[in-house]
Amino acid sequence: MDCEKVGVAGLGLIGASIAQGLAGGFARTVIGFDPDRRARTTASTSVSSTTNRLEDLRGADLIVLAAPPSVVPELIAQIAAWPPDQTILTDVASVKANVADAVPTSLRARFVPGHPMSGHETTGAAYARPDLFHGANWVLCPFPEASENAMQTARSMVRHLRALPVLMDPLEHDRHVALLSHLPHVLASALLLRSASLDHGHIQGGSWRDLTRVGGSNPMLWADILIANKSAVLNELDQTSSLLVEFRKAIEADDVERLKTLIQDARGLK
Amino acid sequence: MDCEKVGVAGLGLIGASIAQGLAGGFARTVIGFDPDRRARTTASTSVSSTTNRLEDLRGADLIVLAAPPSVVPELIAQIAAWPPDQTILTDVASVKANVADAVPTSLRARFVPGHPMSGHETTGAAYARPDLFHGANWVLCPFPEASENAMQTARSMVRHLRALPVLMDPLEHDRHVALLSHLPHVLASALLLRSASLDHGHIQGGSWRDLTRVGGSNPMLWADILIANKSAVLNELDQTSSLLVEFRKAIEADDVERLKTLIQDARGLK
Repeated sequence: MDCEKVGVAGLGLIGASIAQGLAGGFARTVIGFDPDRRARTTASTSVSSTTNRLEDLRGADLIVLAAPPSVVPELIAQIAAWPPDQTILTDVASVKANVADAVPTSLRARFVPGHPMSGHETTGAAYARPDLFHGANWVLCPFPEASENAMQTARSMVRHLRALPVLMDPLEHDRHVALLSHLPHVLASALLLRSASLDHGHIQGGSWRDLTRVGGSNPMLWADILIANKSAVLNELDQTSSLLVEFRKAIEADDVERLKTLIQDARGLK
Repeated sequence: MDCEKVGVAGLGLIGASIAQGLAGGFARTVIGFDPDRRARTTASTSVSSTTNRLEDLRGADLIVLAAPPSVVPELIAQIAAWPPDQTILTDVASVKANVADAVPTSLRARFVPGHPMSGHETTGAAYARPDLFHGANWVLCPFPEASENAMQTARSMVRHLRALPVLMDPLEHDRHVALLSHLPHVLASALLLRSASLDHGHIQGGSWRDLTRVGGSNPMLWADILIANKSAVLNELDQTSSLLVEFRKAIEADDVERLKTLIQDARGLK
Protein backbone atom coordinates (compact mmCIF):
# COMPACT_ATOMS: atom_id res chain seq x y z
CA MET A 1 0.00 0.00 0.00
CA ASP A 2 1.62 3.27 -1.12
CA CYS A 3 -0.86 5.64 0.55
CA GLU A 4 -3.24 5.62 3.46
CA LYS A 5 -5.65 8.05 1.85
CA VAL A 6 -6.03 9.45 -1.67
CA GLY A 7 -8.42 12.28 -2.55
CA VAL A 8 -9.87 12.58 -6.05
CA ALA A 9 -11.41 15.95 -6.90
CA GLY A 10 -13.79 15.60 -9.84
CA LEU A 11 -15.75 12.38 -10.31
CA GLY A 12 -16.14 12.13 -14.08
CA LEU A 13 -14.86 9.27 -16.21
CA ILE A 14 -11.19 10.01 -15.51
CA GLY A 15 -11.51 10.73 -11.77
CA ALA A 16 -13.68 7.67 -11.12
CA SER A 17 -11.40 5.44 -13.22
CA ILE A 18 -8.34 6.64 -11.27
CA ALA A 19 -10.23 6.02 -8.00
CA GLN A 20 -11.07 2.48 -9.08
CA GLY A 21 -7.52 1.81 -10.25
CA LEU A 22 -5.94 3.08 -7.02
CA ALA A 23 -8.39 1.44 -4.60
CA GLY A 24 -6.87 -1.68 -3.06
CA GLY A 25 -3.15 -1.93 -3.68
CA PHE A 26 -2.17 1.72 -3.93
CA ALA A 27 -4.48 3.45 -1.41
CA ARG A 28 -6.34 2.13 1.61
CA THR A 29 -9.17 4.67 1.18
CA VAL A 30 -10.13 6.91 -1.74
CA ILE A 31 -12.35 9.88 -0.97
CA GLY A 32 -14.08 11.55 -3.89
CA PHE A 33 -15.09 15.21 -4.12
CA ASP A 34 -17.55 16.64 -6.62
CA PRO A 35 -19.85 19.66 -6.24
CA ASP A 36 -22.48 17.87 -8.36
CA ARG A 37 -24.77 15.48 -6.44
CA ARG A 38 -25.51 13.30 -9.48
CA ALA A 39 -21.79 12.92 -10.19
CA ARG A 40 -21.23 11.83 -6.56
CA THR A 41 -24.07 9.31 -6.74
CA THR A 42 -22.84 7.83 -10.02
CA ALA A 43 -19.28 7.55 -8.69
CA SER A 44 -20.23 6.23 -5.26
CA THR A 45 -19.26 2.65 -6.14
CA SER A 46 -15.84 3.83 -7.38
CA VAL A 47 -14.68 5.43 -4.11
CA SER A 48 -14.65 4.72 -0.35
CA SER A 49 -16.75 7.84 0.34
CA THR A 50 -17.85 11.05 -1.40
CA THR A 51 -18.08 14.67 -0.29
CA ASN A 52 -19.25 17.99 -1.64
CA ARG A 53 -16.56 19.86 0.35
CA LEU A 54 -13.10 20.01 -1.23
CA GLU A 55 -11.61 20.60 2.20
CA ASP A 56 -12.61 17.07 3.27
CA LEU A 57 -9.68 15.91 1.12
CA ARG A 58 -7.28 17.68 3.49
CA GLY A 59 -4.80 15.37 5.12
CA ALA A 60 -4.73 12.94 2.16
CA ASP A 61 -1.32 11.61 1.16
CA LEU A 62 -2.16 12.41 -2.46
CA ILE A 63 -4.84 14.58 -4.07
CA VAL A 64 -5.61 14.09 -7.76
CA LEU A 65 -7.41 17.02 -9.40
CA ALA A 66 -9.57 15.44 -12.11
CA ALA A 67 -11.63 18.48 -13.12
CA PRO A 68 -11.83 20.16 -16.57
CA PRO A 69 -8.89 22.46 -17.51
CA SER A 70 -10.72 25.67 -16.65
CA VAL A 71 -11.73 24.41 -13.18
CA VAL A 72 -8.33 23.08 -12.03
CA PRO A 73 -6.89 26.58 -11.32
CA GLU A 74 -9.85 27.33 -8.98
CA LEU A 75 -9.29 24.08 -7.09
CA ILE A 76 -5.58 24.88 -6.76
CA ALA A 77 -6.41 28.33 -5.34
CA GLN A 78 -8.70 26.74 -2.73
CA ILE A 79 -6.13 24.14 -1.72
CA ALA A 80 -3.36 26.76 -1.48
CA ALA A 81 -5.48 28.60 1.10
CA TRP A 82 -5.31 25.61 3.49
CA PRO A 83 -2.06 24.53 4.99
CA PRO A 84 -2.05 21.28 2.94
CA ASP A 85 0.42 19.51 5.29
CA GLN A 86 2.42 16.79 3.54
CA THR A 87 -0.09 16.18 0.75
CA ILE A 88 1.33 15.51 -2.72
CA LEU A 89 -0.76 17.01 -5.52
CA THR A 90 -1.28 16.21 -9.18
CA ASP A 91 -3.90 16.87 -11.85
CA VAL A 92 -4.98 15.21 -15.08
CA ALA A 93 -6.16 18.14 -17.20
CA SER A 94 -5.56 17.97 -20.97
CA VAL A 95 -3.81 21.35 -20.99
CA LYS A 96 -0.78 21.97 -18.80
CA ALA A 97 0.59 25.53 -19.14
CA ASN A 98 -2.50 27.12 -17.53
CA VAL A 99 -2.32 24.60 -14.67
CA ALA A 100 1.40 25.21 -14.15
CA ASP A 101 0.76 28.98 -14.10
CA ALA A 102 -1.92 28.51 -11.43
CA VAL A 103 0.34 26.62 -8.99
CA PRO A 104 1.71 29.08 -6.40
CA THR A 105 5.40 28.95 -5.51
CA SER A 106 4.50 27.47 -2.12
CA LEU A 107 3.10 24.32 -3.78
CA ARG A 108 5.60 23.79 -6.59
CA ALA A 109 7.75 21.27 -4.79
CA ARG A 110 4.80 18.97 -4.16
CA PHE A 111 2.53 19.58 -7.20
CA VAL A 112 3.31 17.46 -10.27
CA PRO A 113 1.00 18.44 -13.18
CA GLY A 114 0.04 15.41 -15.30
CA HIS A 115 -2.02 14.25 -18.28
CA PRO A 116 -2.97 10.65 -19.13
CA MET A 117 -3.15 10.24 -22.94
CA SER A 118 -5.97 7.71 -23.05
CA GLY A 119 -8.63 7.99 -25.72
CA HIS A 120 -12.26 7.82 -24.67
CA GLU A 121 -15.48 9.08 -26.24
CA THR A 122 -17.70 8.24 -23.28
CA THR A 123 -18.15 10.57 -20.35
CA GLY A 124 -19.17 10.21 -16.69
CA ALA A 125 -18.31 7.83 -13.86
CA ALA A 126 -20.84 5.28 -15.16
CA TYR A 127 -18.23 4.31 -17.79
CA ALA A 128 -15.29 4.26 -15.35
CA ARG A 129 -12.92 1.28 -15.54
CA PRO A 130 -9.83 0.59 -13.44
CA ASP A 131 -7.96 -0.44 -16.61
CA LEU A 132 -8.73 2.78 -18.57
CA PHE A 133 -5.05 3.81 -18.54
CA HIS A 134 -3.37 0.47 -19.22
CA GLY A 135 -0.58 1.02 -21.70
CA ALA A 136 -1.32 4.75 -22.16
CA ASN A 137 1.36 7.42 -22.01
CA TRP A 138 0.93 9.63 -18.94
CA VAL A 139 2.72 12.94 -19.32
CA LEU A 140 4.17 14.51 -16.15
CA CYS A 141 5.28 18.16 -16.22
CA PRO A 142 7.12 18.66 -12.88
CA PHE A 143 8.48 22.05 -11.81
CA PRO A 144 12.28 22.26 -11.49
CA GLU A 145 11.79 22.42 -7.70
CA ALA A 146 9.71 19.20 -7.54
CA SER A 147 10.63 17.11 -4.49
CA GLU A 148 11.90 13.54 -4.79
CA ASN A 149 8.92 12.42 -2.73
CA ALA A 150 6.41 14.18 -5.02
CA MET A 151 8.02 12.69 -8.13
CA GLN A 152 8.12 9.24 -6.61
CA THR A 153 4.45 9.40 -5.57
CA ALA A 154 3.32 10.68 -8.98
CA ARG A 155 5.36 8.05 -10.82
CA SER A 156 4.16 5.21 -8.65
CA MET A 157 0.52 6.29 -9.07
CA VAL A 158 0.99 6.27 -12.87
CA ARG A 159 2.72 2.88 -12.81
CA HIS A 160 0.06 1.44 -10.50
CA LEU A 161 -2.51 2.40 -13.15
CA ARG A 162 -0.25 0.55 -15.63
CA ALA A 163 0.44 3.69 -17.66
CA LEU A 164 3.87 4.94 -18.82
CA PRO A 165 5.25 8.15 -17.25
CA VAL A 166 6.70 10.59 -19.85
CA LEU A 167 8.41 13.79 -18.65
CA MET A 168 7.74 16.95 -20.64
CA ASP A 169 7.79 20.72 -20.34
CA PRO A 170 4.21 22.15 -20.03
CA LEU A 171 4.44 24.31 -23.16
CA GLU A 172 5.92 21.43 -25.15
CA HIS A 173 3.10 19.22 -23.89
CA ASP A 174 0.47 21.74 -24.98
CA ARG A 175 2.01 22.12 -28.42
CA HIS A 176 2.02 18.33 -28.83
CA VAL A 177 -1.57 17.75 -27.70
CA ALA A 178 -2.79 20.67 -29.84
CA LEU A 179 -1.76 18.61 -32.86
CA LEU A 180 -2.07 15.04 -31.57
CA SER A 181 -5.43 15.39 -29.83
CA HIS A 182 -7.13 18.79 -29.94
CA LEU A 183 -6.91 19.41 -33.69
CA PRO A 184 -8.18 15.86 -34.48
CA HIS A 185 -11.24 16.60 -32.35
CA VAL A 186 -11.88 19.85 -34.27
CA LEU A 187 -11.42 18.15 -37.65
CA ALA A 188 -13.70 15.27 -36.68
CA SER A 189 -16.45 17.69 -35.62
CA ALA A 190 -16.01 19.79 -38.77
CA LEU A 191 -16.38 16.67 -40.96
CA LEU A 192 -19.52 15.64 -39.10
CA LEU A 193 -20.98 19.13 -39.54
CA ARG A 194 -20.35 18.91 -43.29
CA SER A 195 -22.19 15.60 -43.48
CA ALA A 196 -25.47 17.44 -42.82
CA SER A 197 -25.38 18.17 -46.58
CA LEU A 198 -25.51 14.48 -47.59
CA ASP A 199 -28.56 12.39 -48.48
CA HIS A 200 -26.75 9.04 -48.50
CA GLY A 201 -24.34 9.40 -45.58
CA HIS A 202 -24.82 5.69 -44.85
CA ILE A 203 -22.55 4.70 -47.75
CA GLN A 204 -19.59 5.73 -45.59
CA GLY A 205 -16.57 3.42 -45.42
CA GLY A 206 -13.88 2.87 -42.82
CA SER A 207 -12.01 6.14 -43.34
CA TRP A 208 -15.08 8.20 -42.43
CA ARG A 209 -15.83 6.16 -39.31
CA ASP A 210 -12.23 6.51 -38.13
CA LEU A 211 -11.94 10.22 -38.81
CA THR A 212 -15.21 11.13 -37.13
CA ARG A 213 -15.04 8.78 -34.12
CA VAL A 214 -13.99 11.51 -31.67
CA GLY A 215 -16.18 14.20 -33.26
CA GLY A 216 -18.93 15.61 -31.08
CA SER A 217 -17.40 14.20 -27.86
CA ASN A 218 -18.42 15.90 -24.62
CA PRO A 219 -19.13 19.44 -25.94
CA MET A 220 -18.67 21.24 -22.61
CA LEU A 221 -15.31 19.59 -21.82
CA TRP A 222 -13.95 20.06 -25.33
CA ALA A 223 -15.01 23.70 -25.60
CA ASP A 224 -13.11 24.16 -22.34
CA ILE A 225 -10.00 22.29 -23.56
CA LEU A 226 -9.80 24.14 -26.89
CA ILE A 227 -9.99 27.52 -25.16
CA ALA A 228 -7.56 26.51 -22.39
CA ASN A 229 -5.02 25.58 -25.08
CA LYS A 230 -5.92 28.53 -27.31
CA SER A 231 -2.58 29.66 -28.66
CA ALA A 232 -1.26 26.20 -29.51
CA VAL A 233 -4.59 25.11 -31.04
CA LEU A 234 -4.88 28.27 -33.16
CA ASN A 235 -1.32 27.75 -34.38
CA GLU A 236 -2.05 24.15 -35.37
CA LEU A 237 -5.29 25.18 -37.06
CA ASP A 238 -3.39 27.78 -39.09
CA GLN A 239 -0.52 25.47 -40.01
CA THR A 240 -2.86 22.67 -41.00
CA SER A 241 -5.05 25.07 -43.00
CA SER A 242 -1.91 26.13 -44.90
CA LEU A 243 -1.22 22.49 -45.71
CA LEU A 244 -4.79 22.11 -46.96
CA VAL A 245 -4.13 25.08 -49.24
CA GLU A 246 -1.08 23.18 -50.59
CA PHE A 247 -3.28 20.18 -51.38
CA ARG A 248 -5.89 22.49 -52.90
CA LYS A 249 -3.37 24.13 -55.25
CA ALA A 250 -1.96 20.78 -56.36
CA ILE A 251 -5.44 19.34 -57.06
CA GLU A 252 -6.58 22.45 -58.91
CA ALA A 253 -3.43 22.45 -61.08
CA ASP A 254 -3.73 18.67 -61.84
CA ASP A 255 -0.26 18.47 -60.30
CA VAL A 256 -0.05 14.68 -59.81
CA GLU A 257 3.65 14.83 -58.91
CA ARG A 258 3.15 17.39 -56.15
CA LEU A 259 0.21 15.43 -54.69
CA LYS A 260 2.19 12.19 -54.80
CA THR A 261 5.05 13.92 -52.96
CA LEU A 262 2.73 15.32 -50.27
CA ILE A 263 1.10 11.93 -49.66
CA GLN A 264 4.43 10.10 -49.86
CA ASP A 265 5.95 12.50 -47.29
CA ALA A 266 2.93 11.93 -45.03
CA ARG A 267 3.44 8.18 -45.40
CA GLY A 268 7.02 8.57 -44.20
CA LEU A 269 5.79 10.17 -40.96
CA LYS A 270 3.53 7.29 -39.92
CA MET B 1 -22.74 -20.53 -61.72
CA ASP B 2 -23.83 -17.09 -63.00
CA CYS B 3 -21.15 -16.69 -65.69
CA GLU B 4 -18.96 -18.90 -67.80
CA LYS B 5 -16.14 -16.36 -68.01
CA VAL B 6 -15.37 -13.13 -66.17
CA GLY B 7 -12.58 -10.77 -67.16
CA VAL B 8 -10.89 -8.52 -64.59
CA ALA B 9 -8.85 -5.62 -66.02
CA GLY B 10 -6.40 -4.36 -63.40
CA LEU B 11 -4.86 -6.79 -60.92
CA GLY B 12 -4.32 -4.64 -57.82
CA LEU B 13 -5.86 -5.28 -54.42
CA ILE B 14 -9.42 -4.64 -55.61
CA GLY B 15 -9.22 -6.50 -58.93
CA ALA B 16 -7.53 -9.55 -57.40
CA SER B 17 -9.98 -9.60 -54.46
CA ILE B 18 -12.92 -9.49 -56.88
CA ALA B 19 -11.33 -12.29 -58.91
CA GLN B 20 -10.93 -14.42 -55.78
CA GLY B 21 -14.46 -13.68 -54.62
CA LEU B 22 -16.04 -14.55 -57.99
CA ALA B 23 -13.99 -17.70 -58.71
CA GLY B 24 -16.01 -20.82 -57.96
CA GLY B 25 -19.68 -20.06 -57.50
CA PHE B 26 -20.12 -17.00 -59.70
CA ALA B 27 -17.73 -17.61 -62.61
CA ARG B 28 -16.25 -20.80 -64.01
CA THR B 29 -13.09 -19.01 -65.17
CA VAL B 30 -11.67 -15.58 -64.30
CA ILE B 31 -9.12 -14.13 -66.68
CA GLY B 32 -7.01 -11.24 -65.42
CA PHE B 33 -5.48 -8.48 -67.51
CA ASP B 34 -2.71 -6.15 -66.37
CA PRO B 35 -0.05 -4.42 -68.50
CA ASP B 36 2.42 -4.81 -65.61
CA ARG B 37 4.24 -8.15 -65.46
CA ARG B 38 4.85 -8.00 -61.71
CA ALA B 39 1.15 -7.31 -61.07
CA ARG B 40 0.26 -10.36 -63.21
CA THR B 41 2.73 -12.56 -61.35
CA THR B 42 1.49 -11.44 -57.92
CA ALA B 43 -2.14 -11.97 -58.94
CA SER B 44 -1.56 -15.29 -60.70
CA THR B 45 -2.99 -17.32 -57.78
CA SER B 46 -6.14 -15.15 -57.74
CA VAL B 47 -7.24 -15.84 -61.34
CA SER B 48 -7.57 -18.77 -63.77
CA SER B 49 -5.13 -17.12 -66.19
CA THR B 50 -3.49 -13.75 -66.85
CA THR B 51 -2.82 -11.75 -69.99
CA ASN B 52 -1.12 -8.54 -71.03
CA ARG B 53 -3.63 -8.00 -73.88
CA LEU B 54 -6.94 -6.41 -72.89
CA GLU B 55 -8.54 -7.92 -75.99
CA ASP B 56 -8.09 -11.41 -74.52
CA LEU B 57 -11.03 -10.52 -72.24
CA ARG B 58 -13.28 -10.34 -75.32
CA GLY B 59 -16.16 -12.78 -75.21
CA ALA B 60 -16.39 -12.73 -71.40
CA ASP B 61 -19.90 -12.62 -69.94
CA LEU B 62 -18.74 -9.84 -67.61
CA ILE B 63 -15.69 -7.54 -67.62
CA VAL B 64 -14.80 -5.68 -64.43
CA LEU B 65 -12.51 -2.67 -64.95
CA ALA B 66 -10.45 -2.45 -61.75
CA ALA B 67 -7.93 0.20 -62.81
CA PRO B 68 -7.31 3.64 -61.21
CA PRO B 69 -9.85 6.40 -62.09
CA SER B 70 -7.63 8.05 -64.70
CA VAL B 71 -7.01 4.74 -66.54
CA VAL B 72 -10.61 3.48 -66.73
CA PRO B 73 -11.60 5.88 -69.57
CA GLU B 74 -8.70 4.55 -71.71
CA LEU B 75 -9.81 0.95 -71.13
CA ILE B 76 -13.38 1.88 -72.07
CA ALA B 77 -12.16 3.47 -75.31
CA GLN B 78 -10.26 0.29 -76.21
CA ILE B 79 -13.23 -1.98 -75.46
CA ALA B 80 -15.61 0.26 -77.42
CA ALA B 81 -13.42 -0.29 -80.48
CA TRP B 82 -14.15 -4.07 -80.49
CA PRO B 83 -17.58 -5.40 -81.08
CA PRO B 84 -17.94 -6.49 -77.41
CA ASP B 85 -20.77 -8.97 -78.23
CA GLN B 86 -23.01 -9.66 -75.25
CA THR B 87 -20.45 -8.72 -72.59
CA ILE B 88 -21.77 -6.83 -69.53
CA LEU B 89 -19.32 -4.20 -68.24
CA THR B 90 -18.70 -2.57 -64.89
CA ASP B 91 -15.88 -0.73 -63.14
CA VAL B 92 -14.86 -0.09 -59.53
CA ALA B 93 -13.17 3.33 -59.71
CA SER B 94 -13.59 5.66 -56.72
CA VAL B 95 -14.83 8.50 -58.95
CA LYS B 96 -17.86 7.99 -61.18
CA ALA B 97 -18.68 11.12 -63.24
CA ASN B 98 -15.51 10.85 -65.35
CA VAL B 99 -16.20 7.16 -65.96
CA ALA B 100 -19.83 7.82 -66.91
CA ASP B 101 -18.67 10.54 -69.31
CA ALA B 102 -16.23 8.12 -70.94
CA VAL B 103 -18.86 5.46 -71.74
CA PRO B 104 -20.03 5.86 -75.36
CA THR B 105 -23.75 5.74 -76.13
CA SER B 106 -23.26 2.33 -77.76
CA LEU B 107 -22.23 0.79 -74.42
CA ARG B 108 -24.60 2.55 -72.01
CA ALA B 109 -27.18 -0.22 -71.90
CA ARG B 110 -24.60 -2.78 -70.81
CA PHE B 111 -22.11 -0.71 -68.73
CA VAL B 112 -23.01 -0.26 -65.06
CA PRO B 113 -20.44 2.01 -63.31
CA GLY B 114 -19.78 0.93 -59.73
CA HIS B 115 -17.74 1.63 -56.59
CA PRO B 116 -17.25 -0.68 -53.61
CA MET B 117 -16.93 1.41 -50.40
CA SER B 118 -14.48 -0.82 -48.60
CA GLY B 119 -11.65 0.68 -46.59
CA HIS B 120 -8.15 -0.63 -47.14
CA GLU B 121 -4.72 0.85 -46.54
CA THR B 122 -2.81 -1.98 -48.19
CA THR B 123 -2.19 -2.12 -51.89
CA GLY B 124 -1.46 -4.84 -54.44
CA ALA B 125 -2.76 -8.33 -55.18
CA ALA B 126 -0.55 -9.80 -52.44
CA TYR B 127 -3.12 -8.52 -49.92
CA ALA B 128 -6.18 -9.68 -51.90
CA ARG B 129 -8.92 -11.50 -49.98
CA PRO B 130 -12.18 -12.93 -51.29
CA ASP B 131 -14.00 -11.41 -48.27
CA LEU B 132 -12.69 -7.83 -48.77
CA PHE B 133 -16.17 -6.55 -49.62
CA HIS B 134 -18.26 -8.42 -47.05
CA GLY B 135 -20.83 -6.02 -45.61
CA ALA B 136 -19.53 -3.01 -47.59
CA ASN B 137 -21.82 -0.69 -49.54
CA TRP B 138 -21.26 -1.03 -53.30
CA VAL B 139 -22.55 1.98 -55.19
CA LEU B 140 -23.93 1.35 -58.69
CA CYS B 141 -24.53 4.32 -61.02
CA PRO B 142 -26.46 2.85 -63.99
CA PHE B 143 -27.40 4.91 -67.04
CA PRO B 144 -31.13 5.43 -67.57
CA GLU B 145 -30.87 3.08 -70.56
CA ALA B 146 -29.26 0.24 -68.56
CA SER B 147 -30.63 -3.17 -69.62
CA GLU B 148 -32.35 -5.50 -67.18
CA ASN B 149 -29.69 -8.07 -67.92
CA ALA B 150 -26.83 -5.64 -67.13
CA MET B 151 -28.44 -4.56 -63.87
CA GLN B 152 -29.11 -8.15 -62.85
CA THR B 153 -25.52 -9.20 -63.59
CA ALA B 154 -24.02 -6.22 -61.72
CA ARG B 155 -26.31 -6.75 -58.73
CA SER B 156 -25.65 -10.46 -58.55
CA MET B 157 -21.86 -9.90 -58.75
CA VAL B 158 -22.11 -7.43 -55.82
CA ARG B 159 -24.29 -9.78 -53.79
CA HIS B 160 -22.00 -12.73 -54.55
CA LEU B 161 -19.17 -10.69 -52.98
CA ARG B 162 -21.54 -10.20 -50.00
CA ALA B 163 -21.68 -6.42 -50.46
CA LEU B 164 -24.83 -4.27 -50.54
CA PRO B 165 -25.82 -2.61 -53.85
CA VAL B 166 -26.79 1.09 -53.48
CA LEU B 167 -28.10 3.00 -56.51
CA MET B 168 -26.87 6.58 -56.97
CA ASP B 169 -26.42 9.25 -59.61
CA PRO B 170 -22.70 9.62 -60.59
CA LEU B 171 -22.46 13.29 -59.55
CA GLU B 172 -24.22 12.58 -56.25
CA HIS B 173 -21.80 9.70 -55.68
CA ASP B 174 -18.79 11.93 -56.35
CA ARG B 175 -20.09 14.62 -53.99
CA HIS B 176 -20.59 12.01 -51.27
CA VAL B 177 -17.20 10.34 -51.59
CA ALA B 178 -15.46 13.74 -51.75
CA LEU B 179 -16.61 14.25 -48.14
CA LEU B 180 -16.88 10.68 -46.87
CA SER B 181 -13.60 9.37 -48.26
CA HIS B 182 -11.44 11.78 -50.27
CA LEU B 183 -11.37 14.66 -47.77
CA PRO B 184 -10.57 12.30 -44.84
CA HIS B 185 -7.55 11.07 -46.81
CA VAL B 186 -6.36 14.66 -47.37
CA LEU B 187 -6.88 15.60 -43.70
CA ALA B 188 -5.08 12.48 -42.50
CA SER B 189 -2.08 13.25 -44.72
CA ALA B 190 -2.06 16.91 -43.64
CA LEU B 191 -2.02 15.88 -39.95
CA LEU B 192 0.85 13.48 -40.58
CA LEU B 193 2.81 16.19 -42.39
CA ARG B 194 2.34 18.51 -39.39
CA SER B 195 3.70 15.86 -37.05
CA ALA B 196 7.16 16.39 -38.54
CA SER B 197 7.38 19.34 -36.11
CA LEU B 198 7.03 17.16 -32.98
CA ASP B 199 9.79 15.72 -30.82
CA HIS B 200 7.53 13.45 -28.76
CA GLY B 201 5.05 12.20 -31.35
CA HIS B 202 4.97 8.85 -29.53
CA ILE B 203 2.74 10.28 -26.79
CA GLN B 204 -0.17 10.08 -29.25
CA GLY B 205 -3.48 8.64 -28.07
CA GLY B 206 -6.37 6.95 -29.87
CA SER B 207 -7.72 10.01 -31.65
CA TRP B 208 -4.43 10.56 -33.50
CA ARG B 209 -4.13 6.93 -34.57
CA ASP B 210 -7.70 6.96 -35.88
CA LEU B 211 -7.42 10.25 -37.71
CA THR B 212 -4.15 9.40 -39.43
CA ARG B 213 -4.81 5.74 -40.26
CA VAL B 214 -5.60 6.39 -43.94
CA GLY B 215 -2.97 9.14 -44.31
CA GLY B 216 -0.18 8.44 -46.75
CA SER B 217 -2.04 5.54 -48.42
CA ASN B 218 -0.97 4.61 -51.94
CA PRO B 219 0.30 8.04 -53.14
CA MET B 220 -0.07 7.35 -56.87
CA LEU B 221 -3.66 6.06 -56.62
CA TRP B 222 -4.76 8.84 -54.27
CA ALA B 223 -3.18 11.62 -56.33
CA ASP B 224 -5.17 10.17 -59.23
CA ILE B 225 -8.44 9.96 -57.26
CA LEU B 226 -8.20 13.51 -55.87
CA ILE B 227 -7.63 14.94 -59.35
CA ALA B 228 -10.31 12.76 -60.96
CA ASN B 229 -12.83 14.13 -58.43
CA LYS B 230 -11.40 17.63 -58.54
CA SER B 231 -14.48 19.85 -58.39
CA ALA B 232 -16.22 17.93 -55.59
CA VAL B 233 -12.99 17.63 -53.57
CA LEU B 234 -12.16 21.33 -53.94
CA ASN B 235 -15.70 22.21 -52.84
CA GLU B 236 -15.41 20.01 -49.74
CA LEU B 237 -11.98 21.41 -48.94
CA ASP B 238 -13.40 24.94 -49.13
CA GLN B 239 -16.51 24.18 -47.10
CA THR B 240 -14.53 22.36 -44.43
CA SER B 241 -11.93 25.14 -44.31
CA SER B 242 -14.80 27.60 -43.68
CA LEU B 243 -15.95 25.45 -40.76
CA LEU B 244 -12.40 25.46 -39.39
CA VAL B 245 -12.53 29.26 -39.56
CA GLU B 246 -15.75 29.11 -37.47
CA PHE B 247 -13.94 27.03 -34.85
CA ARG B 248 -10.97 29.39 -35.01
CA LYS B 249 -13.11 32.45 -34.38
CA ALA B 250 -14.93 30.85 -31.44
CA ILE B 251 -11.66 29.71 -29.82
CA GLU B 252 -10.00 33.09 -30.33
CA ALA B 253 -13.00 34.90 -28.80
CA ASP B 254 -13.20 32.48 -25.81
CA ASP B 255 -16.73 31.82 -27.05
CA VAL B 256 -17.50 28.68 -25.02
CA GLU B 257 -21.18 28.72 -25.99
CA ARG B 258 -20.46 28.85 -29.73
CA LEU B 259 -17.90 26.02 -29.45
CA LYS B 260 -20.31 23.90 -27.41
CA THR B 261 -23.00 24.45 -30.06
CA LEU B 262 -20.64 23.49 -32.90
CA ILE B 263 -19.54 20.30 -31.12
CA GLN B 264 -23.09 19.48 -29.99
CA ASP B 265 -24.38 19.89 -33.55
CA ALA B 266 -21.58 17.59 -34.78
CA ARG B 267 -22.60 15.05 -32.14
CA GLY B 268 -26.17 15.12 -33.48
CA LEU B 269 -24.87 14.09 -36.94
CA LYS B 270 -23.10 10.91 -35.81
